[in-house]
Amino acid sequence: MTYDVFSLTCPTRQVISALSDKWVTLVLAALAEGPQRFSQLARRVEGVSQKMLTQTLRSLERDGFVSRTVTPSVPVRVDYELTELGTELRGIVLQLRAFAESRMDRIREAREDYDAAVA
Amino acid sequence: MTYDVFSLTCPTRQVISALSDKWVTLVLAALAEGPQRFSQLARRVEGVSQKMLTQTLRSLERDGFVSRTVTPSVPVRVDYELTELGTELRGIVLQLRAFAESRMDRIREAREDYDAAVA
Repeated sequence: MTYDVFSLTCPTRQVISALSDKWVTLVLAALAEGPQRFSQLARRVEGVSQKMLTQTLRSLERDGFVSRTVTPSVPVRVDYELTELGTELRGIVLQLRAFAESRMDRIREAREDYDAAVA
Repeated sequence: MTYDVFSLTCPTRQVISALSDKWVTLVLAALAEGPQRFSQLARRVEGVSQKMLTQTLRSLERDGFVSRTVTPSVPVRVDYELTELGTELRGIVLQLRAFAESRMDRIREAREDYDAAVA
């Protein structure tokens, strides 16, 4: 089967949708720095709620991008890390992060120019 | 100023949000193939409504990723293309598209395994 993201009924559309999510991007960017526990991720990705983080990790786990390891200690320890498949997204996410952080000033200028032109 | 996507109040969060959108990804992927008119984009990105395409292009134009050229013919011709800044996103978007299209089978398998395990 040949997949094509431009086709309305192609299942890859679901993958594009799943990955086109702010929290997914930020959680993958955090995991790109190495395996982390739930509580570490919750601190690293400022502003994410416990519920949203749980939901995001579950979706990433279901798609095979993140693995979850439970250590039966007291308290139970849960570690998350990128799988081999998830590691293929590492480069994309790091480039997106670098783009946002390095081009923010140019984006701000573009917005100011646009808003001034349409005002 | 130093930007950090992990910081809740960092303006780069808006850029991550703006780019973490299915239609933005698909429209950028279409424009990665070259300049296109509105009607061409509407056909290429199957399923996008006129309203959503207009909104997506306006947001991309405001952020400085896409330029809009109006030719005063009858009927008026409007072309869209990636700016220099937008071209920096080309690689990221093409990698995301290639990932979705080439890894769909593995993602499907991961989902089936996950759903079977939690059932």
